[in-house]
Amino acid sequence: MKTSLEITLSELKKFLNEEQISVNLTVRELHSKDESYHEVSLPDIVVFPKETDEVSQILKTANNLHIPVVPFGRGSSLEGHVIPYDNGITIDFSLMDKILEIRENDLLVKVQPGVTRTQLNKELKKYGLFFSVDPGADATLGGMAATNASGTTTVKYGVMRDQVRDLEVVLADGTVIHTGSLAAKSASGYHLNGLFVGSEGTLGCFTELTLRVYGIPEFTMAARAVFPTVQNAVEAVTSILQAGIPIARVELVDEESIRQVNRFSETNYAERPTLFLEFDGNEAGLKQDIEFTKEIMEDHGCEEIQFETDNTARTKLWDARHNLAYAYIHGNVGKKMMVTDVCVPISELADAVVFARKELNSLDLIGGLTGHVGDGNFHAIIMIDMNDAEEVARADSFNEKIVHYAIDRNGTCTGEHGVGIGKQKYQALEHGAALQVMEKIKIALDPNNILNPQKIVKIESIGE
Amino acid sequence: MKTSLEITLSELKKFLNEEQISVNLTVRELHSKDESYHEVSLPDIVVFPKETDEVSQILKTANNLHIPVVPFGRGSSLEGHVIPYDNGITIDFSLMDKILEIRENDLLVKVQPGVTRTQLNKELKKYGLFFSVDPGADATLGGMAATNASGTTTVKYGVMRDQVRDLEVVLADGTVIHTGSLAAKSASGYHLNGLFVGSEGTLGCFTELTLRVYGIPEFTMAARAVFPTVQNAVEAVTSILQAGIPIARVELVDEESIRQVNRFSETNYAERPTLFLEFDGNEAGLKQDIEFTKEIMEDHGCEEIQFETDNTARTKLWDARHNLAYAYIHGNVGKKMMVTDVCVPISELADAVVFARKELNSLDLIGGLTGHVGDGNFHAIIMIDMNDAEEVARADSFNEKIVHYAIDRNGTCTGEHGVGIGKQKYQALEHGAALQVMEKIKIALDPNNILNPQKIVKIESIGE
Repeated sequence: MKTSLEITLSELKKFLNEEQISVNLTVRELHSKDESYHEVSLPDIVVFPKETDEVSQILKTANNLHIPVVPFGRGSSLEGHVIPYDNGITIDFSLMDKILEIRENDLLVKVQPGVTRTQLNKELKKYGLFFSVDPGADATLGGMAATNASGTTTVKYGVMRDQVRDLEVVLADGTVIHTGSLAAKSASGYHLNGLFVGSEGTLGCFTELTLRVYGIPEFTMAARAVFPTVQNAVEAVTSILQAGIPIARVELVDEESIRQVNRFSETNYAERPTLFLEFDGNEAGLKQDIEFTKEIMEDHGCEEIQFETDNTARTKLWDARHNLAYAYIHGNVGKKMMVTDVCVPISELADAVVFARKELNSLDLIGGLTGHVGDGNFHAIIMIDMNDAEEVARADSFNEKIVHYAIDRNGTCTGEHGVGIGKQKYQALEHGAALQVMEKIKIALDPNNILNPQKIVKIESIGE
Repeated sequence: MKTSLEITLSELKKFLNEEQISVNLTVRELHSKDESYHEVSLPDIVVFPKETDEVSQILKTANNLHIPVVPFGRGSSLEGHVIPYDNGITIDFSLMDKILEIRENDLLVKVQPGVTRTQLNKELKKYGLFFSVDPGADATLGGMAATNASGTTTVKYGVMRDQVRDLEVVLADGTVIHTGSLAAKSASGYHLNGLFVGSEGTLGCFTELTLRVYGIPEFTMAARAVFPTVQNAVEAVTSILQAGIPIARVELVDEESIRQVNRFSETNYAERPTLFLEFDGNEAGLKQDIEFTKEIMEDHGCEEIQFETDNTARTKLWDARHNLAYAYIHGNVGKKMMVTDVCVPISELADAVVFARKELNSLDLIGGLTGHVGDGNFHAIIMIDMNDAEEVARADSFNEKIVHYAIDRNGTCTGEHGVGIGKQKYQALEHGAALQVMEKIKIALDPNNILNPQKIVKIESIGE
C-alpha cells in the first residue's frame, strides 16, 4: 500500500516537473527554519511552482488530501512564520520572481511574489521611482505582504498594507481570486486586500501583487540629535509630528546601544539617547522644516545636532543606527540575537522604553533598545546563549513582560514582525472576543485548516 | 396571539425607555430613505440607543427573533445603504454623539458614531488639529466609517479606512469586540479594522471609533488652472503626482459644468476644462512646489492659472467647484440629481471622462462631469425628471455603461459612494470569485442575515 507521502508525490507529479519537487533533506532543512530562534521542523516536500495555475493545482491536491501547506519566500521572517510544524508541503516561490509590469503613470507595479524589494528598487530607479517599505532584510514582496512588513520609512509612507492595491490569491481549494483593482480607491465590497495582507499564509497564497510606488524625492536630508533622556527625545518627535513636519524616518537608539556601537566601530559618539532622522521633499521646504525641527529639538533639551545632505555624509551619519545589530553580534560571539517587537501609543513610548531598560538591567540581560519613534514601535535586541536555559528563560520572561506592558496600554504584541508561532499565545489577550471573529473567518475560508496551520489562529488539527 | 411586532416591542421595552423606541409614522418615514433616488421602504421600529450595552441588547434581541437591523447615522448615503428593504428595526445613533477623548500627543480622537465631522472639526480646532475626510455632506463619523467615505482631500490624506485606528463593534449576536488598538501600526492578527470599515452595517454596528487626526498645516494655497482639453488637465496632474509634489486637493470640472456655474452665479470663468487645486505645507516649500507646478501645467498647455493664499480669496476661487451641484439643481427646477461614481486607474481617467461626455450627449442627458483627479474617481451629475420613465431609463443606461467601462479597465463601480442597493448588481462583475469569499465572511459573522440584508452581498433571506 502507498504511504500518504507517496500518494501526494504521485499527485504532484501529474502537473509539476521532476525538478519542481524535492524531498532532498538539504532542501527540506533550508525550509525548516526562518531567522528566528524558534524550533525547526521539516516539511515533507518542497515544491517550486512557476505559475499561478500550478499553485492552484498544488492547493487543490493538498486540500483533497488534507496536507498542510506553507508558502515560503526567503525565510527572513522573525517569528517562525514559515516553519512547517505540521510538516506537509512547503511552496517555495523563488521561481516566481518576475516584475510583470511597471505602470509609470499610475505609480503602480505588478510583480510575482518571489521578487525581492532590492530587485524591485533596482528596476524602479530607471524610472525615477522607488518602493517605500524597508524592513531591513531583503525579503520577497510576497513575504512582506503576507506579514504586513514595515520599517523605518513607515512614519511617512505607511506599512505594506498601505501599498497593496491588488493581490492575486490562490485559496485553500485552489480557487484564484483578486482582492482589489487598479483604482486608487474603492468603496466596493469588503476590503479583502486588507484582510489578506498580514494573514501570514493562513488564508491563501499570493501569486501576483500590484503595489504602489513613489517618485524619488528631489532632496533628502539626514540628522543625528543627542538628548539627555529618552523622554526628551520622544517628546521632541511628538512635537515635530504635531507640527505636521513630514519626517521620512526617525529612529531612537538608547545610550547602551551607542556605547556598543562605539566599541565595535571605534567611533566616539556621545553615549546618550540619540535620534537618527531623515527628511525628504523639495529643497526650500526642507530647509524651512529643518529650522523649525532644530528649534523644537532645542526646546526639548537637545544637546548636539548634526545635519547632512550629501549622500556619503548621510550614510556615514546613519552608520551608528545601521551597525547596531552587527555591533551586538560582534561584541557577543557565541550568543544568539532575540528581538522583541511591541508597539504602544506614542504618548506611552518614552515610559515603555524606560521600563524596558529597567527590566533588561534587573534581569541581567545584555541588550539595546531601538525604536521607530514615529510609530511607537520599539525593539529590544537581546544577546542570549541558547545553551544557557536559565538565560533563555530570562529573555523569554522579558519578552512576556514587554508584551503585557504594551497590551495593558492598548498597544500591540507585534508592531511589524508578525504573529507566526511566537506571538500566537498573546492573540487572545490582545484581541479578546475579536479572536473568535478571526477564527470564524479562517474556518470559513480554509475549512480543512491546511494553510499554514497553528499560525495566527489555532484551529482544531486536521482530520485524516 | 401577539404579532411579531408586538413581541419585538415588548422585548425592546425590557431595556429601553419609552422615548428610545418609536413606531410613529413620521419617524419611520424619516428612516425610510437616504439622499439617493432609490425606492423608499419603512422600518417597523426605530430605536435610539444611548450606550453600547443597549446596542448589544438590541442586536441580541433581533438575532433571537430573526428581525433585520439597519444602523442609521444622518441618512446622507447615496446608494440606498440605510433603506430597510426587509423592514425590521432601524438603529438611529443620533443620541450617541459624544466626543469621548482627544489624545493630542497620539494625534487620535475617540468618538461615538453619531458625532458629525463638522462637530468634530469644531472641537479639534481648539487644539490646532483637524480631521481630514471630507465627503461634502455633514455625515456622522459612524456612517462615514460604515461606507469608507472619502472626498476631495483623499489624494493627500487617504480614505476613511486610513483614519480608523480602532472600532468598537457590536456583532450580530450582541458580542462587543474591538477591531484594532491605539498603536500606530500592528502586525497582530487579521486586519479587522479594514474589514469592518466599508462593511455598510452588514457585519456589525459601530459604537465607538478611534480616528487619526492631523496638525492644521501652516500654510495653504489654492489654484485654478484652465486647460484646452480634459486630457491636458489630467496629464498635468499625473506629472505633478509623479514629481512627488504633495497636492492636498485636485478637482476637475468639465467645460459644460463651468458653463452651468457661469449661468447660475453670473460669473465669467473661461468655459474650458478647469482644475481646482489646493496645496498645504510650509511656506517656503509650497512656494517652490508651486513654481514647479506652474511649469508642469504650462508644459501641458495650461491657458490660465490663478493662485490665492488669502483665506477669502481661496474660498472665492473654489466657489465654482463648490457651487457646481447647486448650479445644476437651480438650473433644472423639478428635476432630481443622480450622481454616478466610478474610479479608474489614473492612466485611464482622461479617456473615461471623454467617453462619459460623449455618452451623456448621445443619450441627450443634462449633466456635468467632475472628478477627484488624483484618485481617478469621477462623477457625472445628471439632472433627471423622475416622472419621465424614459429619461430615467436613459440615465440608468448611462450609469450602467460607465460602470462597465470602469470595470473593463480594472477600475471599480464605486470610488466613494459605496454599494448599498444601487451597486449590488455589479458586485459579481467586479469581484468575480472574490464575491464568494465576501459571502462566506458574511455568513460566518451573521448567520441569520439580520444585519442590513440585501446590501453588498445577497444572502438567502431570513427564515422565520
